[in-house]
Amino acid sequence: MDPIEIHKKLRGKIFIGPKAELKTIEDLSTLYTPGVAKPCLEIAKDKNLAYDYTFKGNTVAIVTDGTRVLGLGDIGPEAALPVMEGKALIMQQFAGIDAIPICLGTKDEDEIVNAVKALAPTFGAINLEDIETPKVFRIEKRLTEELDIPVFHDDQHGTATVALAGLYNALRVVGKSKVKIGIVGAGSAGYAIAKLFSAAGFTDLVIFDSKGAIHKDRDNLSEQKLELANFNSSNFSGTISEFSGADVIISAATPNSLPLETVKSMNKPNIVFALSNPISEISLDQARELEIDVFGTGRSDYPNQINNSLCFPGFLKALLSLRIRKITNEMKIAAAKAIADSVESPTKEKIVPDAFDKKVVEKIHTYIKELSA
Amino acid sequence: MDPIEIHKKLRGKIFIGPKAELKTIEDLSTLYTPGVAKPCLEIAKDKNLAYDYTFKGNTVAIVTDGTRVLGLGDIGPEAALPVMEGKALIMQQFAGIDAIPICLGTKDEDEIVNAVKALAPTFGAINLEDIETPKVFRIEKRLTEELDIPVFHDDQHGTATVALAGLYNALRVVGKSKVKIGIVGAGSAGYAIAKLFSAAGFTDLVIFDSKGAIHKDRDNLSEQKLELANFNSSNFSGTISEFSGADVIISAATPNSLPLETVKSMNKPNIVFALSNPISEISLDQARELEIDVFGTGRSDYPNQINNSLCFPGFLKALLSLRIRKITNEMKIAAAKAIADSVESPTKEKIVPDAFDKKVVEKIHTYIKELSA
Repeated sequence: MDPIEIHKKLRGKIFIGPKAELKTIEDLSTLYTPGVAKPCLEIAKDKNLAYDYTFKGNTVAIVTDGTRVLGLGDIGPEAALPVMEGKALIMQQFAGIDAIPICLGTKDEDEIVNAVKALAPTFGAINLEDIETPKVFRIEKRLTEELDIPVFHDDQHGTATVALAGLYNALRVVGKSKVKIGIVGAGSAGYAIAKLFSAAGFTDLVIFDSKGAIHKDRDNLSEQKLELANFNSSNFSGTISEFSGADVIISAATPNSLPLETVKSMNKPNIVFALSNPISEISLDQARELEIDVFGTGRSDYPNQINNSLCFPGFLKALLSLRIRKITNEMKIAAAKAIADSVESPTKEKIVPDAFDKKVVEKIHTYIKELSA
Repeated sequence: MDPIEIHKKLRGKIFIGPKAELKTIEDLSTLYTPGVAKPCLEIAKDKNLAYDYTFKGNTVAIVTDGTRVLGLGDIGPEAALPVMEGKALIMQQFAGIDAIPICLGTKDEDEIVNAVKALAPTFGAINLEDIETPKVFRIEKRLTEELDIPVFHDDQHGTATVALAGLYNALRVVGKSKVKIGIVGAGSAGYAIAKLFSAAGFTDLVIFDSKGAIHKDRDNLSEQKLELANFNSSNFSGTISEFSGADVIISAATPNSLPLETVKSMNKPNIVFALSNPISEISLDQARELEIDVFGTGRSDYPNQINNSLCFPGFLKALLSLRIRKITNEMKIAAAKAIADSVESPTKEKIVPDAFDKKVVEKIHTYIKELSA
């Protein structure tokens, strides 16, 4: 069905439903005034009881300012709403989470931080989504420091976790463990992938932006790029075209950012994730021509879709049900292992689970729970 | 059932439900990426299309800062959540509205205004609730001026509309039309009742606060009280105890604010609404002893419950479905007439419809729609 037609027919992909029916005066006086005063007064004494008496404990705000929506760029908060509703629908369908789109009418960093802080008492977790970089890095950092609920940034945490899951299984398939990795792109995805891979023990990393390798001797590096330069242990300073001998390349940039000669010069057997979406940096036909051993993309019509929706429903469910206040690398690594382990026998064409695999949400919860055990 | 038990069992009185199921990759690619880009891009060109392609057009934010919740006072945003969920449940059950509680973690006027402005792109209407006066008057005024969606303040608009509906039918019952009215209390309810009654042509009004009648010669009147002083056409300057010969008294203050001698000195047949809740200013037994001809309260266990829930579901539904941007007195008067007309043959004990009368929502919609016809 045409997306416009179905969106017009639905007028919203989610709705507010009742957990109880109001049929009698007694229903009203128990669920509303005067009876409702009782749970109110208990929560006033101990605000943690909001998790027991209200929807807070299962509720996520999906917050965007509409500045970096999909590959569409700055389309504004109203235009971002169909995407946020889509994510809310995924969270509901895959993990039973009550997720509410909040598309903000401001692009100002301080105003976004203040708005989310103001919203926080109502929600059990915040999911930041499709906010432009580098602003979003600062917003995530500030909110993580200041809020007593977890702040998940899907474009970073989700993408990096699923990429790591894919890497774990791809390495099993090719039989390698110590690998040289190139990461193309230093936006939310590239930055977060580099940080998580490093935390997971993959320390031979070079990250490239449009100016070439990010290394310590480059001028005018942002705070984030300085972090990335520290991962470049060989201090490689060339362009991506000059980068040879990699075992793994992860591209999370624009469709034309990954030169074929770089792929040709890789150390076989090789692993390439070309995550740009909907047009990947390398097509499936090209990947076959280049004889890439394990090839993943962001596309649902190719094998090995490195798809955030493998992570965020289960990860957010775990954050909520375990009442986690801060997200750690250990949790993301545990989630990546859970996703990877959901594939019983990884093959070249099957390094991540199916998008509809019901096991994944539960496994992520179990693995994260075991961290605190 | 005990309110604590039922709140604990439900863990939230509302949930997010799916309007479509995600079962196949095609579902995902139509309702989410890449298909979702189509409605996004259309809305980016014309943001009004958000009303056609998203849940915005049926969605209300119920916003509070938790400073004046029921009769409980400043209990904080988390403790306000059960009340806001209750209102959301009423809106869902009575009018099919998608209402979302937003309990803000700030009491600062500017921060509340900024947070609501930031939220506005996601919602079709704002319902302000249980925010302390006089701050809430300024917040409502600023938001009404600055937003392109309607701002409904239930404690004012809802209460005043239902009080006017009750007055219309009470006057039919006692056979009066030109009446002298006393209003006790100058909080949200008293202020809004006075303004709406005046707009509806009831110009013989005296409003009382804890210091007595509000009149032009009193010092240090707030902006709101200056407005109220202008309604006092006889410039009455005594206390409520000294106020005699009224046909109608509406009390929306504290339980002890309405002296019995004032009621005794009224011009019979008389009408008294004692709206304090859960303890009304006058009990049903006292009302009988005093031989009040038409007696209304805020209580569900007495006849004639002047109950906001007779107004807000239908009023908000009308605002949404008619895409009204600013609320006018004419709309509130139309809604009051709709509520009054929902009672076929008003009697002393039946001046307003039953809380569960399904006709009311539809009638409010019809009457408001006719204004623009």
